[in-house]
Amino acid sequence: MVPSAATDAVFNALSSPTRRKVLERLSVGPASASELAAPFDMQLPSFVQHLSILEESRLVKSKKRGRVRTYEIAPARLKIAEDWLTARRQVWEARLDRFDQYVKQLKQKESKP
Amino acid sequence: MVPSAATDAVFNALSSPTRRKVLERLSVGPASASELAAPFDMQLPSFVQHLSILEESRLVKSKKRGRVRTYEIAPARLKIAEDWLTARRQVWEARLDRFDQYVKQLKQKESKP
Repeated sequence: MVPSAATDAVFNALSSPTRRKVLERLSVGPASASELAAPFDMQLPSFVQHLSILEESRLVKSKKRGRVRTYEIAPARLKIAEDWLTARRQVWEARLDRFDQYVKQLKQKESKP
Repeated sequence: MVPSAATDAVFNALSSPTRRKVLERLSVGPASASELAAPFDMQLPSFVQHLSILEESRLVKSKKRGRVRTYEIAPARLKIAEDWLTARRQVWEARLDRFDQYVKQLKQKESKP
């Protein structure tokens, strides 16, 4: 089972449109902090705060080489959120299937002479 | 394409552990507000606020019959979040595949006499 602290951190990280845009960019390939910041009209300290939240959630990891810190996506954590959502949908769909079966049985009973 | 306001509302709704627990409960079947509130050590107005956020995001819908309001999950919106995550993973995996191909080609070139 996934520890709920990990799930909390991941869904919290995903709740910001800025952080989701960063993840969209990083799914295409690694990028430096300044490359990631470029599309956003935001002060650098605020933007770095978003990167920290992403890194703490372990949705991304970073490496420093010389003066440049490069970020990349860490897909294992994305999968925590994806699996949580898929599980909800599957439970729901299984319930609908059982309900369909039940309605079918009722109809068969009614149609018997 | 999914309007980004819908994606924002869904991921915002999913960011709270309380609201995710409510969705876990509702994926099993509909429930009234008081049934949903029972497992939580929370004042009712705070809890109702969580239900409002879920309903505004359209992850859940509610119906009032007499005095009882019943909530149920609305899986189409869950799918918005699931699809967003799946798309990120697929882009990332496609990139890894291309990288593998590239490494394979390099090795073949090197192994030629």
